[in-house]
Amino acid sequence: MRQRILTGDRPTAPLHIGHYVGSLQSRVRLQREYDTFILIADVQALTDTFEHPERVRANVLQVALDYLAVGLDPQACTFVVQSMVPEIAELTVLYLNLVTVSHLRQNPTVKHEIAQKGFGENVPAGFFVYPVSQAADITAFGAHLVPVGDDQLPMIEQTNEIVRRFNRLYAPVLTETKALVGETARLPGTDGRAKMSKSLGNAIFLSDSVDEVARKVRGMYTDPNHLRADDAGTVEGNPVFAYLDAFDPDRAGVDALKAHYRRGGLGDVKVKRRLLEVLDGTLAPIRARRAEYARDLGYVRGVVQAGTQRGRAVAACTMGAVRAAMQLDYFAEDGGVVGTPSAVSAASS
Amino acid sequence: MRQRILTGDRPTAPLHIGHYVGSLQSRVRLQREYDTFILIADVQALTDTFEHPERVRANVLQVALDYLAVGLDPQACTFVVQSMVPEIAELTVLYLNLVTVSHLRQNPTVKHEIAQKGFGENVPAGFFVYPVSQAADITAFGAHLVPVGDDQLPMIEQTNEIVRRFNRLYAPVLTETKALVGETARLPGTDGRAKMSKSLGNAIFLSDSVDEVARKVRGMYTDPNHLRADDAGTVEGNPVFAYLDAFDPDRAGVDALKAHYRRGGLGDVKVKRRLLEVLDGTLAPIRARRAEYARDLGYVRGVVQAGTQRGRAVAACTMGAVRAAMQLDYFAEDGGVVGTPSAVSAASS
Repeated sequence: MRQRILTGDRPTAPLHIGHYVGSLQSRVRLQREYDTFILIADVQALTDTFEHPERVRANVLQVALDYLAVGLDPQACTFVVQSMVPEIAELTVLYLNLVTVSHLRQNPTVKHEIAQKGFGENVPAGFFVYPVSQAADITAFGAHLVPVGDDQLPMIEQTNEIVRRFNRLYAPVLTETKALVGETARLPGTDGRAKMSKSLGNAIFLSDSVDEVARKVRGMYTDPNHLRADDAGTVEGNPVFAYLDAFDPDRAGVDALKAHYRRGGLGDVKVKRRLLEVLDGTLAPIRARRAEYARDLGYVRGVVQAGTQRGRAVAACTMGAVRAAMQLDYFAEDGGVVGTPSAVSAASS
Repeated sequence: MRQRILTGDRPTAPLHIGHYVGSLQSRVRLQREYDTFILIADVQALTDTFEHPERVRANVLQVALDYLAVGLDPQACTFVVQSMVPEIAELTVLYLNLVTVSHLRQNPTVKHEIAQKGFGENVPAGFFVYPVSQAADITAFGAHLVPVGDDQLPMIEQTNEIVRRFNRLYAPVLTETKALVGETARLPGTDGRAKMSKSLGNAIFLSDSVDEVARKVRGMYTDPNHLRADDAGTVEGNPVFAYLDAFDPDRAGVDALKAHYRRGGLGDVKVKRRLLEVLDGTLAPIRARRAEYARDLGYVRGVVQAGTQRGRAVAACTMGAVRAAMQLDYFAEDGGVVGTPSAVSAASS
């Protein structure tokens, strides 16, 4: 059996070129090598967007369109809508017993995000426990590998702590998972901030039109001290060059541009023109495929529905094993409430 | 439609005479007046018994037997096994977004229990969030009334806070619930401690044999200063008299015994003999019915299975309304992923 990968996105906005560089590209590369499950994590999206369910709703389909547009192949990978898999919620509730509040409080990723979002003690409980819900995602699909950035490693460790505790307490039915740490290219926002996001208004979306991309590139932050073309400019922390690094296949050309920019005489307009050209090379085929799929939303819906059904079948299988291990399989054929739990009879036979 | 009641027990041990006085008796009295759902709360039991799932497993059937033995009628009320209703877990996960960690931390009931169990910061997250899971229980079945003791009032308040927040944010689909505060007779343990429980070894179970009950009554704690029958004795804090108050139908007789005990000349043995007689009057018919049902465990299993099915249908109906309100009804007939969410179309039509 091929190893199974679980990956996915919170559908709070359409996907942007940061997602493309950071994960979508490598998913496309890996999809024939691994059995790939891609979770459209709407329940997790609600942990910080619960006041705007309509936003989550609308983006489930947008994200699916983005997947198809970048070349994720529904024959090769399985798109699953998280909220349609009740087994994930069931596993979450059972796993919550295996983690203490103080341990969750120490999770570096959650700690950082709570600070970033300014939640303090008023963090919603759903957000606070989301590492447990991620452990449910990963184990529900029996994922051997989860592609992550370094900052997500505590999540993988939390999952495996739950897996080991579960297997030790009940029965060894859950699979430990491994982080697949890739080149974690992270694009800064068009405004130079570390992260690209819809709420910051500094993202270029895969679904942006040619004009929108041109407008956003023209408005990009560069070196604030590079006032005239003649001035020497700084490449470090300059998002235009970060994007060129990520998208321009002509490495030597990028090096030459950087040298020219550093010594002065190269205007921002020229560099941005090159970036636009390069971005368009990547985005044009994606845009074309997206438009094609958008004309047949019934097909896209069918892909998501079929994927969710397949995902649910896998999760139901895991949940069956978890029920047997925890002796919660009351109405099972071979015992039920009055009989010997199947896990016990299996172990003793 | 009759008003609906939700009540239930954590199946960590068979039920004892404290349960009988505190809740079972009034359930029997109310079962023809209200549509009664009784939750065998195995998932909640696991929040503090997750290291012993076999104990929870074994007691699901014992508790069902206790219900039938005290006269709860499966024609009048619905026995539901919590873990077999995935919708409760789904609601729990969604409701966790509507409560903050600091608010949960301030819940007086949970605070008290965390202190009592000595959890401190090492409280399992599942235990910490159990008020949210109780809100899921109550709303899943659309209960209008929940019989509770005063100490459980914060739970009802927490549920209604979630209900109001949900209805305001999404759509008014959840029912607010009311506490049905009864005579909250609480029996002390046979050792005089405030609470009767299996783990303290101070409980008289409904399933105890005549001999076990006799042995436990003979060993009961009384007034430690009442060494000889001639001595004056104290009635207050003396569990033998607390039990007589709860079970002896001859009120005048109990008053006379108390007076005699107080002035001296009445030995513990005599008071205990009366108590045993009275307890036997209550327990003999319960014991007989229990033995009868225990001979037909297939029937008991069928009752639990049918009740769980009925309960699950009600919870699925609630979950459908919740999905529509939160726009999570992706594959609904009238819209699905690509269409207008049904809640919106219903509101705008």
